[in-house]
Amino acid sequence: MVGRLVGLSVAALLASTAVPLAAETPDREQIVSIVKEQRDATIEDLREWIALPTIAAEKLNTPAGAEYMKQLALDAGFQQAKIIPTDGVPAVFATLDAGAETTLGLYFMYDVKQFDPSEWDAPPLEGRLVEREGEGLTIVGRGAVNQKGPEMALLAAIKAIQASGKKLPVNLVLVAEGEEEVASTHFDQVVAVPEVRDALAKTVGVFIPSAAQSKDGSANITLGAKGAVEFQLVVGGETSDKYPKTDIHSSNHARIENPAWRLVKALDTLVADDGHTPAIDGWFENVRPLTERQKELIAEGAALNPEEEAKALLGVGRWIDDEPYVTSLERFLSQPTVNIQGLIAGYTGPGGKTVLPGRAEAKLEFRLVPAMTKDEAVSKLKAHLAKRGFDDVQVTVSGGYGPNETDEDSVLIRAQKALFDEKGIPYSIRPRNAGSWPGVIFNGPPLNLPASQFGLSRGGGAHAPNEWFLIESSDPKVNGLDEAIMAYVDYLYVVAEEAAEVSD
Amino acid sequence: MVGRLVGLSVAALLASTAVPLAAETPDREQIVSIVKEQRDATIEDLREWIALPTIAAEKLNTPAGAEYMKQLALDAGFQQAKIIPTDGVPAVFATLDAGAETTLGLYFMYDVKQFDPSEWDAPPLEGRLVEREGEGLTIVGRGAVNQKGPEMALLAAIKAIQASGKKLPVNLVLVAEGEEEVASTHFDQVVAVPEVRDALAKTVGVFIPSAAQSKDGSANITLGAKGAVEFQLVVGGETSDKYPKTDIHSSNHARIENPAWRLVKALDTLVADDGHTPAIDGWFENVRPLTERQKELIAEGAALNPEEEAKALLGVGRWIDDEPYVTSLERFLSQPTVNIQGLIAGYTGPGGKTVLPGRAEAKLEFRLVPAMTKDEAVSKLKAHLAKRGFDDVQVTVSGGYGPNETDEDSVLIRAQKALFDEKGIPYSIRPRNAGSWPGVIFNGPPLNLPASQFGLSRGGGAHAPNEWFLIESSDPKVNGLDEAIMAYVDYLYVVAEEAAEVSD
Repeated sequence: MVGRLVGLSVAALLASTAVPLAAETPDREQIVSIVKEQRDATIEDLREWIALPTIAAEKLNTPAGAEYMKQLALDAGFQQAKIIPTDGVPAVFATLDAGAETTLGLYFMYDVKQFDPSEWDAPPLEGRLVEREGEGLTIVGRGAVNQKGPEMALLAAIKAIQASGKKLPVNLVLVAEGEEEVASTHFDQVVAVPEVRDALAKTVGVFIPSAAQSKDGSANITLGAKGAVEFQLVVGGETSDKYPKTDIHSSNHARIENPAWRLVKALDTLVADDGHTPAIDGWFENVRPLTERQKELIAEGAALNPEEEAKALLGVGRWIDDEPYVTSLERFLSQPTVNIQGLIAGYTGPGGKTVLPGRAEAKLEFRLVPAMTKDEAVSKLKAHLAKRGFDDVQVTVSGGYGPNETDEDSVLIRAQKALFDEKGIPYSIRPRNAGSWPGVIFNGPPLNLPASQFGLSRGGGAHAPNEWFLIESSDPKVNGLDEAIMAYVDYLYVVAEEAAEVSD
Repeated sequence: MVGRLVGLSVAALLASTAVPLAAETPDREQIVSIVKEQRDATIEDLREWIALPTIAAEKLNTPAGAEYMKQLALDAGFQQAKIIPTDGVPAVFATLDAGAETTLGLYFMYDVKQFDPSEWDAPPLEGRLVEREGEGLTIVGRGAVNQKGPEMALLAAIKAIQASGKKLPVNLVLVAEGEEEVASTHFDQVVAVPEVRDALAKTVGVFIPSAAQSKDGSANITLGAKGAVEFQLVVGGETSDKYPKTDIHSSNHARIENPAWRLVKALDTLVADDGHTPAIDGWFENVRPLTERQKELIAEGAALNPEEEAKALLGVGRWIDDEPYVTSLERFLSQPTVNIQGLIAGYTGPGGKTVLPGRAEAKLEFRLVPAMTKDEAVSKLKAHLAKRGFDDVQVTVSGGYGPNETDEDSVLIRAQKALFDEKGIPYSIRPRNAGSWPGVIFNGPPLNLPASQFGLSRGGGAHAPNEWFLIESSDPKVNGLDEAIMAYVDYLYVVAEEAAEVSD
């Protein structure tokens, strides 16, 4: 996921008695027994899934991964599951009709990030069980926490309820994509398929299973995320015959234009002289200011996360404009950004080399806040450059999506609060994540659905070597696999109950 | 050499009768016989020198190369030769007192450019004799033409005159440096040594042996060169605690400054919005416009070098501002530049990656024209950035030197003209080379000496694989090694004669 596990640590730990207790899951002890009996099989299922990595950037196991995902859904009791082709990697659409009043949407990703086995202590595709200091028994492998582990736990929950002889308390609509790690490039095509769209439209919202329990056992609820759009600006012999096609001797700059200067001139117009405020024409038109409730949550979160720790973690001594901590956190969550991810042109080795580059490239990214959209931001960028005559600066949008935002009073979020309260799990509410995930696909038009993440247990190392997911926690406050599965079981019941209350 | 063999091909072929013929070299046939007898030994000497590459950037054979250079001078009949230590690679200073009226300065470089043997067809340190299509028999090796071949030819000329029983017609002062390929970083320290400075001050000028005969047999005379100063601008965690020390997750740009933006803002101030006119405060103060004579030479040169060929060679379709060819050539030779050699920051692989870079670097270079100086340009840059508050932008000057310019009526140049006339070799006069060499060390204060290049024969592949120097030419219009040696013999006599005429 594009940065979802990184970034904001604003947490507002709420008293666990604010919301009335939800009803018990029926025959819960029986289901707990089934989950325990099935544990070895569940772990084995996860290991087998980890052994088949789908990597969109490398076109690795893309049809095979989709077929596997489809079979996982069918094995979990979905009555129908089908491959949805896209212009990129295919997706999977599945439904489970339990004859329930309420329908819940599930978003899965079946792809994983690239990995280099030489950097791993355990083979990245083995799913080896490894004792982790201070955590407990973990499963190590690419995709363990991002996102196969939590997803497999949810599938195990669905199976366990059925194995107890009951129907699920909610109907399920599952969409699983294979391009999450390349910014969900074609995911809009999946939800545009009428059958998929119509099925999703009946849900109370869509969530992705996750494993975001903190080390102290607390959980968090996130009410949205910024959007992210990645693009590259290129100038050089490939965009205009003013520039050479390859690097040439630098003395020629006296008579030949340098594409690196042109890139600098174009970039310079995109942010103000302060070096951070976006200066693209019309950029702030649809930026919605923070609400009082959002500011309240930010202030509460700030109190729980010491400023000096945050600075040390990020390796900086100051926030933008030397702002105080809470102001910088408000900026962090409220401001859309134009970021330079990277620059590359000409000679990049030690010291200097007398060349005039044939090509200059800047890698950039927007972070968008409600109510900006991806199309709006890209159109404004292109119009901005065109207005200033930068027709030799090529814009390539490599992926991205807009922001998402889900109401605190939606069934999805009410159910999370109720469940944490019932279990006595302290939790924080993040008004928004500064990182991004493609929830806008569900959250934006035409579906306009609540979109969220939910899941207990813990993991780490997403996008890094030695990715892990907790199986048996050494700390009773933190959930292991069995408890994470049971949390999904309970969540399905609480969602059904909250939805019934809303519709009453 | 920093771009001396690349760049301008402005040539003004002059009628070969414009200057009165110089006197014959005495007993020339005897010296020719000696050169021929010594040829195998000369080639062997060159091969042995090539086998010992001195590479300043890699600190390879730096003391050994200086010792070897010193011994080469002593073997050639210099009465004294000594190592001159510097803060970098040591230089060599040698003198040959022939009891002559006139003293001539010689500038050698004993270092060579880096090489990668895997890119070569013949081993780069073997000095293998290879037949080259359309050229003749060549010696192939790193340093063959840049600059050991021409230098060894000059040493062979000095030996041959002495072997014929005569004293040289001129006294010689040799300075040889081992850091030419890293922009002569410490060469000013060498000529600042009183003994070296005083010896050079007695010369009529200093020249470096070269091999710049064209394929059609014509030669050229260059009356100067632009200066070149290389520097790097760096912004990041190492320059201010506003920036992170390493790349961090890009979502943080909403609250943390991005050093790449700061670099863009600083760079943007260095050139005008046209993307090429330097905008550093006071930049043009000491820029001397072209003289009518220089413009005349440029126009004559343009007529000899078709515009479309020049564009094709450089891979461009247009000159700056769509200027006509002669205007672009005047710009090429008259305009000082601020060039971006390279940019590097953050993520530089395919597509994008959600990082905020911890460091951003631009590699830049000035090209300077008379009467600008290196110190002036660097001071103006630093003052320009300081005035605009860019105290977090670190400037590192990695090397360089100012421009040089030698009068057409100096002994060095008059002797070249006389010699080419005598031999019936057509020649062009380049008013200035847009590339650079450290002639300013001699040409600037306190020495203020004429500084030039001279040498017949041909070679190629400087700084590239399969570097070569011609030994036996397949074309009678082009000189091979024997003739190149004799051209140096003749040149020493013509210099003595021209100097006598001037002092009469």
